[in-house]
Amino acid sequence: MKVSIVGATAYTSRDLIKILARHPEARIVHLGGRREGNPPIVDIFPELKGVCDMRLAGLEPADAPEKPDVAFFTLPHGVSMEYVPRYLEAGVRCVDFSADYRFDEVALYERWYRRHDDAANVARAVYGIPELFADRIAGADLVGNPGCYPTSVILGLAPFVRAGLISGADVTVDAKSGVSGRGNKPSLGSMYCECNEDLRAYKVTGHRHEPEMEHGLRLAGAAGAEVTFIPHLAPMDRGILATIVAPLEREATDEELQSVLEDFYAGRPFVRVRAAEDQPRTKAVSFTNCCDVAAVVRKRRRLIVTSAIDNMMKGASSQAVQNMNVMFGLDQTAGLL
Amino acid sequence: MKVSIVGATAYTSRDLIKILARHPEARIVHLGGRREGNPPIVDIFPELKGVCDMRLAGLEPADAPEKPDVAFFTLPHGVSMEYVPRYLEAGVRCVDFSADYRFDEVALYERWYRRHDDAANVARAVYGIPELFADRIAGADLVGNPGCYPTSVILGLAPFVRAGLISGADVTVDAKSGVSGRGNKPSLGSMYCECNEDLRAYKVTGHRHEPEMEHGLRLAGAAGAEVTFIPHLAPMDRGILATIVAPLEREATDEELQSVLEDFYAGRPFVRVRAAEDQPRTKAVSFTNCCDVAAVVRKRRRLIVTSAIDNMMKGASSQAVQNMNVMFGLDQTAGLL
Amino acid sequence: MKVSIVGATAYTSRDLIKILARHPEARIVHLGGRREGNPPIVDIFPELKGVCDMRLAGLEPADAPEKPDVAFFTLPHGVSMEYVPRYLEAGVRCVDFSADYRFDEVALYERWYRRHDDAANVARAVYGIPELFADRIAGADLVGNPGCYPTSVILGLAPFVRAGLISGADVTVDAKSGVSGRGNKPSLGSMYCECNEDLRAYKVTGHRHEPEMEHGLRLAGAAGAEVTFIPHLAPMDRGILATIVAPLEREATDEELQSVLEDFYAGRPFVRVRAAEDQPRTKAVSFTNCCDVAAVVRKRRRLIVTSAIDNMMKGASSQAVQNMNVMFGLDQTAGLL
Amino acid sequence: MKVSIVGATAYTSRDLIKILARHPEARIVHLGGRREGNPPIVDIFPELKGVCDMRLAGLEPADAPEKPDVAFFTLPHGVSMEYVPRYLEAGVRCVDFSADYRFDEVALYERWYRRHDDAANVARAVYGIPELFADRIAGADLVGNPGCYPTSVILGLAPFVRAGLISGADVTVDAKSGVSGRGNKPSLGSMYCECNEDLRAYKVTGHRHEPEMEHGLRLAGAAGAEVTFIPHLAPMDRGILATIVAPLEREATDEELQSVLEDFYAGRPFVRVRAAEDQPRTKAVSFTNCCDVAAVVRKRRRLIVTSAIDNMMKGASSQAVQNMNVMFGLDQTAGLL
Repeated sequence: MKVSIVGATAYTSRDLIKILARHPEARIVHLGGRREGNPPIVDIFPELKGVCDMRLAGLEPADAPEKPDVAFFTLPHGVSMEYVPRYLEAGVRCVDFSADYRFDEVALYERWYRRHDDAANVARAVYGIPELFADRIAGADLVGNPGCYPTSVILGLAPFVRAGLISGADVTVDAKSGVSGRGNKPSLGSMYCECNEDLRAYKVTGHRHEPEMEHGLRLAGAAGAEVTFIPHLAPMDRGILATIVAPLEREATDEELQSVLEDFYAGRPFVRVRAAEDQPRTKAVSFTNCCDVAAVVRKRRRLIVTSAIDNMMKGASSQAVQNMNVMFGLDQTAGLL
Repeated sequence: MKVSIVGATAYTSRDLIKILARHPEARIVHLGGRREGNPPIVDIFPELKGVCDMRLAGLEPADAPEKPDVAFFTLPHGVSMEYVPRYLEAGVRCVDFSADYRFDEVALYERWYRRHDDAANVARAVYGIPELFADRIAGADLVGNPGCYPTSVILGLAPFVRAGLISGADVTVDAKSGVSGRGNKPSLGSMYCECNEDLRAYKVTGHRHEPEMEHGLRLAGAAGAEVTFIPHLAPMDRGILATIVAPLEREATDEELQSVLEDFYAGRPFVRVRAAEDQPRTKAVSFTNCCDVAAVVRKRRRLIVTSAIDNMMKGASSQAVQNMNVMFGLDQTAGLL
Repeated sequence: MKVSIVGATAYTSRDLIKILARHPEARIVHLGGRREGNPPIVDIFPELKGVCDMRLAGLEPADAPEKPDVAFFTLPHGVSMEYVPRYLEAGVRCVDFSADYRFDEVALYERWYRRHDDAANVARAVYGIPELFADRIAGADLVGNPGCYPTSVILGLAPFVRAGLISGADVTVDAKSGVSGRGNKPSLGSMYCECNEDLRAYKVTGHRHEPEMEHGLRLAGAAGAEVTFIPHLAPMDRGILATIVAPLEREATDEELQSVLEDFYAGRPFVRVRAAEDQPRTKAVSFTNCCDVAAVVRKRRRLIVTSAIDNMMKGASSQAVQNMNVMFGLDQTAGLL
Repeated sequence: MKVSIVGATAYTSRDLIKILARHPEARIVHLGGRREGNPPIVDIFPELKGVCDMRLAGLEPADAPEKPDVAFFTLPHGVSMEYVPRYLEAGVRCVDFSADYRFDEVALYERWYRRHDDAANVARAVYGIPELFADRIAGADLVGNPGCYPTSVILGLAPFVRAGLISGADVTVDAKSGVSGRGNKPSLGSMYCECNEDLRAYKVTGHRHEPEMEHGLRLAGAAGAEVTFIPHLAPMDRGILATIVAPLEREATDEELQSVLEDFYAGRPFVRVRAAEDQPRTKAVSFTNCCDVAAVVRKRRRLIVTSAIDNMMKGASSQAVQNMNVMFGLDQTAGLL
């Protein structure tokens, strides 16, 4: 499978390149990125030396030396929608990292992001959480790769929605992310001396991943999903830990909650159910495509779910590759173990 | 004022010694600690060189070279209750860092900790949050210095309890602490390579600070306080950030919430009210006695409070000194700016 | 003493303000800084809330609401030399953080920095390491506050120069600095995800602190000082650890080296001599004006000195205040303990 | 190839298991470790869930369910020499992580470590740096896997020894290691709050890797190798950066030094030569088998080499697998890219 990466200078691309470089069925044929003089990618990410020795090229399908089978877009919101249609038209299947194709309602996207210039393709896009929507992904030409926070939350709650234990209403999500979630553009808030030894909430009045969580939970069956999401920045490179609180529809035991998770994720190798006393940790999922989850009940009717992913992997690049695997009928784990 | 520190080898003592060494009205006369050969305290904490050149002595009142006016106890739960009565009997006023004198009900203490051997003195102990209980602290011989997590939560919620905006029921606390909260006894969970680049919840089925929060909120006026507390360990030395969610009794605006905080903490120099977009950060309170708080409303009736303290300072040592200042009629800020 | 800080938005100013705010003899009367609308300093450094509530004003002497006795310049190299002469002319004594007044030879400055526009004042400037040059500092109107790396190295070697144990030739300095040494301007190299879990050398072909070390060692008596300096960036906020290797003029024992240090620094409260097995650590000097040093001999004739300072304190702000104390005949430790 | 890991509960084993689990030609058949009840390895290293689901077994060859072709020993110094002979006798080829088989002189080992109980096998052991000694490793039954610090230093200097540019005398090594180098046994010095925001030298009067560096340099051709080694502990999980200074035998240019490195390491995929301005960084080699090196000349005759490895990978586990690959005639990179 020939692969194009459009937007190759983003942090998420760095990990994507590493994964694809050792993927048994994939070969990168095109790194699209805008940098003066089309430098080698190792000039941007020195650790790719020996991993990928390609140079950057332009962003258009025509800039790819060979025609790709699949293209990954690691462009900013609003820019993806310019390029995705051109690749689809050229017969290239697309996995988009931006929010541009995550919502099935254009209006919802436009309320939180900006005007959508490619409404036509929104309808054909599939929301790419393979543990939940593998059937639809398998047939899709265009997959909207989920946001990092929503991935952790939807994987944590979907089993309980499906089991009828929660309605999806009154959900509170307190999530903590490593600094890589801020991207690689220098800013005061991303500096070492601002982040080290610091923990803080941000965007407490509303973060764009909140409607995406509600949307994903609706797709998973929670018609009335309503989430209050409070994101935090933690002093670490990678990882998201989401701590989720939701009212239970009825009383349940810890053992029952554990069974719900284990039954749901049986045969889904990337979600690992943890015992309550062996809590999910970001370190245990670091550099992997895994999501670790655990659940307990508190105060009789409160469900507490903890869910850990690597925001750059299951929250972005490796989930994108997992989506590609499903789209092309490969084993889901190809290149990801 | 002559000061004794009983349990001088604990992490919390290190900071306490630093504060007292520069306190204009206090002088350390006794460092009680059990170490073979009574070594100088700098052997345990090398950074105290030039700050405090005393040696350790025994733990008893009689081991103090001069009779102290006040004693701080940085002993483990259950050990404080052995020594506090002896100091009280010797006419020394006491500030205890353990949980032994935090609860006014012995039964509640015994449910979460262990048998209480000094019930007689529980009745005379005052819970030491000076912003809330200064009057009672001023007259007390024995102050139970609060836990770190409860301090951050009670300071964040008390103004809304007093204003009738919350009842104290259905409170959820998601708090993140630096590793110093685990103390200085070597253990796998405190090792650098276990904590660095990691974030995890712990004691999700119940932490002993949960009843202390409920108890403190009751003291502040919330008769029906009920808290679900989920503590987390974050990769940093110091600091607690508590993110608190509670149902509002009626709709309110962000401006109103901000006013409630500002009115309540006017004239209380250690609590700083932040704007919602300038969130409390652990780094901004590091090495200070400050508590930074902010509040917003979400989904119309959900109060979100964020509260940051230094767990070793306002969460332990500097709050203890603030309590001493109040007990002895000094300016609250003496030695703490 | 009335104090002006010219360049108040630099990282070094933040610590300077904190120190001066609690200095018993000093009062800040002027914060000079170029920011649109002269915002309060807390807008730049939120942690200064309650510490300093002043607003920024212009950079000129005339912008100071009251005439200062002393001005601190935390401006970039080349900018200080514009403003210092104006303050000197206005009768204000000056402590400059930049390199502009550190060298007594203009030519040496110009080789490593840029053209010098204020050569006239270079001659009257004194190099400000109070442990070595207190007599000259006491009478100075203009002190060049030393660089962070040179401070750590000159304090580590001067005793051995004075004792005739080293000539200053063939010195190798391997120094490791926290990220705050890079200042607070956002750049790729200062970002959390670039610095965390990373260690690297930089400017291995020549760093401007190398000639400053040689110059300082010459002032301390090592006529033929020649240093090979290799700076490194370490994943921490603060601190410099310099590991220095120099050939001994004759064989010596560890005990002799220890005595040389102890004799030299007796009565100099900020330099603490450590035993070889209780090595200087950046953490032990963090947020202090201390320099911790230790020395051993290896392979019979190799002197190994380790020296730790807080780059923002003894390497910048607190040393500047120490210089001020000496200039005005105060106790060296005023405001610094 | 069937693989036994003897000492499976050490930190180094965790990475070794991960590598072998995805090695195309290897299969773990035995995890030897002493833990009550032979628990699954995931109980010790939870992140191995889904990677390796085996249980621990005893340490003896007979405890292996299938006879292994090769055994890795991650036991402490002095313990390896008890078990290695038993595996050799059973016809199993051995790669030992301890220092027990690194030196070809028993006397040198005994001066720095302890009595050697298996002198007979010392003679047949080969020092395992594949970039230098591949021929001997290919035929060996017993490989002494090098120490982490020596690997970084010997790879950095060998090309200059071979080129006659340095004699190996008067070498100074200032190396900085992440905390994982201390192993996973809880101790005060390994705790988060002791290591974070700290940098310190240790064992400045002599570290056992110093004679190993000299020994390895002698093997590489520097008969008179003499090294002064100063190790440091840096606040990071992984990585070693060695900064090496050595006198050049004659003047040389930076370009010449760069060529020496590039020529020497051409065709050796794991050593990457960096430009002076693109210095080796621990982060760029993290979780890889790579060693990044760069060299410049200072003060005309001083060679400065910087060398970065992951102490747990090229400094331990991945180099062991590279040695196995060479021993069994596989491609050196098998399982390591």
